[in-house]
Amino acid sequence: MTQPPVRIGLIGTGRIGQVHAASIAADPGATLAWVADPFIAGAAAIGERTGARVTDSAEELIDSGEVDAVLIASPTPTHVDLIELSVRAGLPVLCEKPIDLDIARVEALRPLVEASGVPVALGFNRRFDPNHAAARARVAAGEIGPLEQLIIISRDPAAPPADYVAVSGGIFRDMTIHDFDMARFFAPDIVSVSATGSQAFDPGARAHGDFDTAVTTLRTGSGAVITIVNSRHSATGYDQRIEAFGPLGMLQVGNVQSSTVTFSGASAVEARPPYPEFFLERYAEAYSAELREFLRLVRGEASTSPSFEDGWAALVLADAAQRSATEGVAVAVDLGSGEHGAAAGS
Amino acid sequence: MTQPPVRIGLIGTGRIGQVHAASIAADPGATLAWVADPFIAGAAAIGERTGARVTDSAEELIDSGEVDAVLIASPTPTHVDLIELSVRAGLPVLCEKPIDLDIARVEALRPLVEASGVPVALGFNRRFDPNHAAARARVAAGEIGPLEQLIIISRDPAAPPADYVAVSGGIFRDMTIHDFDMARFFAPDIVSVSATGSQAFDPGARAHGDFDTAVTTLRTGSGAVITIVNSRHSATGYDQRIEAFGPLGMLQVGNVQSSTVTFSGASAVEARPPYPEFFLERYAEAYSAELREFLRLVRGEASTSPSFEDGWAALVLADAAQRSATEGVAVAVDLGSGEHGAAAGS
Amino acid sequence: MTQPPVRIGLIGTGRIGQVHAASIAADPGATLAWVADPFIAGAAAIGERTGARVTDSAEELIDSGEVDAVLIASPTPTHVDLIELSVRAGLPVLCEKPIDLDIARVEALRPLVEASGVPVALGFNRRFDPNHAAARARVAAGEIGPLEQLIIISRDPAAPPADYVAVSGGIFRDMTIHDFDMARFFAPDIVSVSATGSQAFDPGARAHGDFDTAVTTLRTGSGAVITIVNSRHSATGYDQRIEAFGPLGMLQVGNVQSSTVTFSGASAVEARPPYPEFFLERYAEAYSAELREFLRLVRGEASTSPSFEDGWAALVLADAAQRSATEGVAVAVDLGSGEHGAAAGS
Amino acid sequence: MTQPPVRIGLIGTGRIGQVHAASIAADPGATLAWVADPFIAGAAAIGERTGARVTDSAEELIDSGEVDAVLIASPTPTHVDLIELSVRAGLPVLCEKPIDLDIARVEALRPLVEASGVPVALGFNRRFDPNHAAARARVAAGEIGPLEQLIIISRDPAAPPADYVAVSGGIFRDMTIHDFDMARFFAPDIVSVSATGSQAFDPGARAHGDFDTAVTTLRTGSGAVITIVNSRHSATGYDQRIEAFGPLGMLQVGNVQSSTVTFSGASAVEARPPYPEFFLERYAEAYSAELREFLRLVRGEASTSPSFEDGWAALVLADAAQRSATEGVAVAVDLGSGEHGAAAGS
Repeated sequence: MTQPPVRIGLIGTGRIGQVHAASIAADPGATLAWVADPFIAGAAAIGERTGARVTDSAEELIDSGEVDAVLIASPTPTHVDLIELSVRAGLPVLCEKPIDLDIARVEALRPLVEASGVPVALGFNRRFDPNHAAARARVAAGEIGPLEQLIIISRDPAAPPADYVAVSGGIFRDMTIHDFDMARFFAPDIVSVSATGSQAFDPGARAHGDFDTAVTTLRTGSGAVITIVNSRHSATGYDQRIEAFGPLGMLQVGNVQSSTVTFSGASAVEARPPYPEFFLERYAEAYSAELREFLRLVRGEASTSPSFEDGWAALVLADAAQRSATEGVAVAVDLGSGEHGAAAGS
Repeated sequence: MTQPPVRIGLIGTGRIGQVHAASIAADPGATLAWVADPFIAGAAAIGERTGARVTDSAEELIDSGEVDAVLIASPTPTHVDLIELSVRAGLPVLCEKPIDLDIARVEALRPLVEASGVPVALGFNRRFDPNHAAARARVAAGEIGPLEQLIIISRDPAAPPADYVAVSGGIFRDMTIHDFDMARFFAPDIVSVSATGSQAFDPGARAHGDFDTAVTTLRTGSGAVITIVNSRHSATGYDQRIEAFGPLGMLQVGNVQSSTVTFSGASAVEARPPYPEFFLERYAEAYSAELREFLRLVRGEASTSPSFEDGWAALVLADAAQRSATEGVAVAVDLGSGEHGAAAGS
Repeated sequence: MTQPPVRIGLIGTGRIGQVHAASIAADPGATLAWVADPFIAGAAAIGERTGARVTDSAEELIDSGEVDAVLIASPTPTHVDLIELSVRAGLPVLCEKPIDLDIARVEALRPLVEASGVPVALGFNRRFDPNHAAARARVAAGEIGPLEQLIIISRDPAAPPADYVAVSGGIFRDMTIHDFDMARFFAPDIVSVSATGSQAFDPGARAHGDFDTAVTTLRTGSGAVITIVNSRHSATGYDQRIEAFGPLGMLQVGNVQSSTVTFSGASAVEARPPYPEFFLERYAEAYSAELREFLRLVRGEASTSPSFEDGWAALVLADAAQRSATEGVAVAVDLGSGEHGAAAGS
Repeated sequence: MTQPPVRIGLIGTGRIGQVHAASIAADPGATLAWVADPFIAGAAAIGERTGARVTDSAEELIDSGEVDAVLIASPTPTHVDLIELSVRAGLPVLCEKPIDLDIARVEALRPLVEASGVPVALGFNRRFDPNHAAARARVAAGEIGPLEQLIIISRDPAAPPADYVAVSGGIFRDMTIHDFDMARFFAPDIVSVSATGSQAFDPGARAHGDFDTAVTTLRTGSGAVITIVNSRHSATGYDQRIEAFGPLGMLQVGNVQSSTVTFSGASAVEARPPYPEFFLERYAEAYSAELREFLRLVRGEASTSPSFEDGWAALVLADAAQRSATEGVAVAVDLGSGEHGAAAGS
């Protein structure tokens, strides 16, 4: 590893931007060279801690000539334009999900990305969770035989504010999109989507015509059936479980506990403590691993970073689920080979 | 309990008939008075062990004047006629599920049953499993708040012979029907059914146009979403789990273990032994409890026996699932109040 | 099994006598022929339910000529005399533990028992618990290699009344005696005993110079070390666990749960329900299995019933533990081969 | 935290020294100023990565005037002299356990340490494990009531080389010493020690008169009984569990799993993956937390660092256990108040 560190330009300094800034600071293979945010105080705070140069202009960052790659953690509506600018500048991109809420905009951008040969990676961080990754590797190694059923249980700790719901694009595009990618991580050849949504508890969802509760069933070309169970709240805390089932057995990914201590008393036996807070805590390791893989991609090495195509496919599935839940029909989808990858330009 | 034992006439002496014969023998509130089976050797074997009178004619049993109630454990196609004969004779009935594979025959029988006032109970034994029953009671007691999601995982140990598949009525009417009843046990007001089936592994299912793998999503009038995951095989053994989720938490019913011993070694930690064999072993206690509740029904006492209406409703759901899986549409159902009950005629 | 049922004479109709009466009634290989208790109402109540003849005199029962075997469930101080009477009458005996609190009385009885050839079995019921038995069988099968460590955790739900403590013979002879037998079930060649006792919470124990908390360490001739952890109370309920450790791994016997339902909410995750009440509930299956093995012994068949020698050995260990805890020294014991067995007279 | 970082001088660059070097590099409150090791290549390697100055002389490091505190990770026989040099130079010390294998040398050093007022902390890293710490905090908070029983199961993955055994001071001083400190972490007022050792499997232990298997029972002044179960090997991997028991229930600290994935198949159900490798992996977080507490101590802030007295007490217990196991007697100990603490000089 005698290569110089990859100089990263970070765009966006909200909660997730700060997580990435910390990952970059901790990774010996990267340095945070520039930080951009129209909210300049956010950029300045990170600059002070890390020595990064600071700007309120993403363009200035991209044109600085002092970054080797761009990490986009700004609001969703800005993603498409920033990917375009970065790709045109020849700078590899790691972009937070989703690419956009509008599949038309994503598809309009696609030819440029494909023609450019510039690697564009999507921030599907859960692929890098050591537990999910171990389960998937064991499935791939044939431990349970061909995958027949996959159950993904994914519940957030608490419903987001109504304002957020209003612009979120709906539960399928905002929340389930992670689970769609996880489904494709295990089984890329999805051909059909069927979804059921409900307004079970959240006034915000009801006010904006969104669901707070949803179940989505996916079918693959090879006959596997995938079930995604979502809720916008969970008294137990962030609930992230997977069950992969095949002819030889099943692999289950349980929730991470905040400690290994259990209590047994007069009314409860082996009661465990609550789960870690939310995605920043639960997937802390995953964000670091995601960055490491992106650095490999930037350097032109073999990399498992999710690609622009993965981002597109997840959105196609979200759109199909939205339509299925609304119209009460199963929706066929064509994701192509699902094997485009985010492979380096070389 | 100074009442004389209820004299039971048992029709059918196959595997499940033998289970009922044993339950009756063990229950101080019942005696096995008559046993009928065209396969007279089966009836004779039970008669020898129990002292019951034996016949190859169900009619003779019903007309004997020596039975207080009839337990129907004969093949499905005989159920409707035998219920009719019993009800006309004024004899309360406990009939194995399903009433029939053809909803039209069930609905044709219904007016007679309703008009007669004779209690007809259905053999949905899982309601009487102490674990399922405890979870349902705790949900009913409000421990998790209003039910928002219910996940039922139900996998058989091994696919049935192709011959059986051919006459089974399909996975939804044959296997999922138990899960439909379990769904209604927790949430009776189901209004919509959406199902996805697959031929993932079983040549028998493929040969007869049936599914071996299925996921069914039900929605209730109050907005709860129920997911049923089925497979016709399971390397792990008979897999019967439930997860009930609400705003205050979740109740999970795990599988029964054959022992509490775990092994930890170089490659596996806390590995438990395989599950009990199949439904006869797994639900042994449930069959006894089912009989006890039926005896209460016969005596005109308050009883929680599933009713003829419960049998009808499960079949309606199975038909809807079959149609949904075939046509790719969500199917609306109207189960009425779902509260008919099997309550005694008085 | 065309043999006639074994006619049992039951002496003692307290809590444990009633358990045995029920086991005998449920076992097709046995009938309850006579019941004796100076408290004649207890005997009468059982006689009424079972048809057994009733007496207030154990001698009358033994001399009746109408029993094939005797089950002694009377108070401990009567055991030695009743075993002697039964053995002299040529009647096989199943006697509740302990044989006596005084090792001298036990050793005085021993020559008669050995010379008679009449089988005498001891009621160490835990050997027949399916979980303990499975773990022991797997150890014997070499699954963990040679046993190196055995940990037995054994805690009663609540301290007994002070009156009981006064005549109990002390925690080692009254409570740990079961664990000593369990230790010998896994590793018969114990050579050394070291015990530590404490008066941690129970005024009754303090008043009568007994311990309420104790840890006993046993060493075997082959170098295995066994640890027994006892408490006279347990908020969690009756706590009965075993961990057998060897070079290839470990086998752990967990507590039996009253159901498989777990609750997860805001403050506790996967909390299980409390354990079954106490030994009658926890070891219900074990009592039936114990009887079955005794019936085999009576019939002269191969049997695994614990023997008079097992009863003697457990008491030797209890005496050694009492001395060790009092004097602060490790106490050597000589249990001989430990392989006498309760084998039938033939 | 506007204070300048604490300049640490690290003595010893073996496996554990490298762990400390990494913790120091990662902690914003500390810098690694000097590294000393007679094996100069080890020091040089760390110096290259961190910019620390390098020497083969511990004295040069202590006298450099460029360190604020000393971290001693050199071989045990050097500890006493290096503590003395550091304390005389007024430099706070964090010293790996044990202080020395010879209690006489420890007690000879003690007056100097006490008189100096210079804080000396001992590297009992397990106190800083988040799981152990959480359990202890919950016990201290009264969740189970007064502690009555504590069970510590502590097994290493594999026996050390015979050469190591030869100079280790024996299992109690080398391995159990961590568990003695853990026992005192939960219950400082230990008054009696009783131990049983065995040569069950390891030829190295046998050759050098050491034990490979041991059980130690400690009694506290308040009547709690503590059991420590040790083995020098464990097929399951590094096995570190604690059970704290009191009148209101029990708290159990389970092993850390390397992932949350479980496998269920035909022969095993819910089998988990093996544990993390050994102490460096298992207690990685604990080493960082240990350093943080030491930095607080150096700065004169309130700190929970284990003290010189804690190091002395653990050795007293180890000596007592050795004597008990050899002579077969319970050994009384007087640890004084056990509350000396490592409190800062002020």
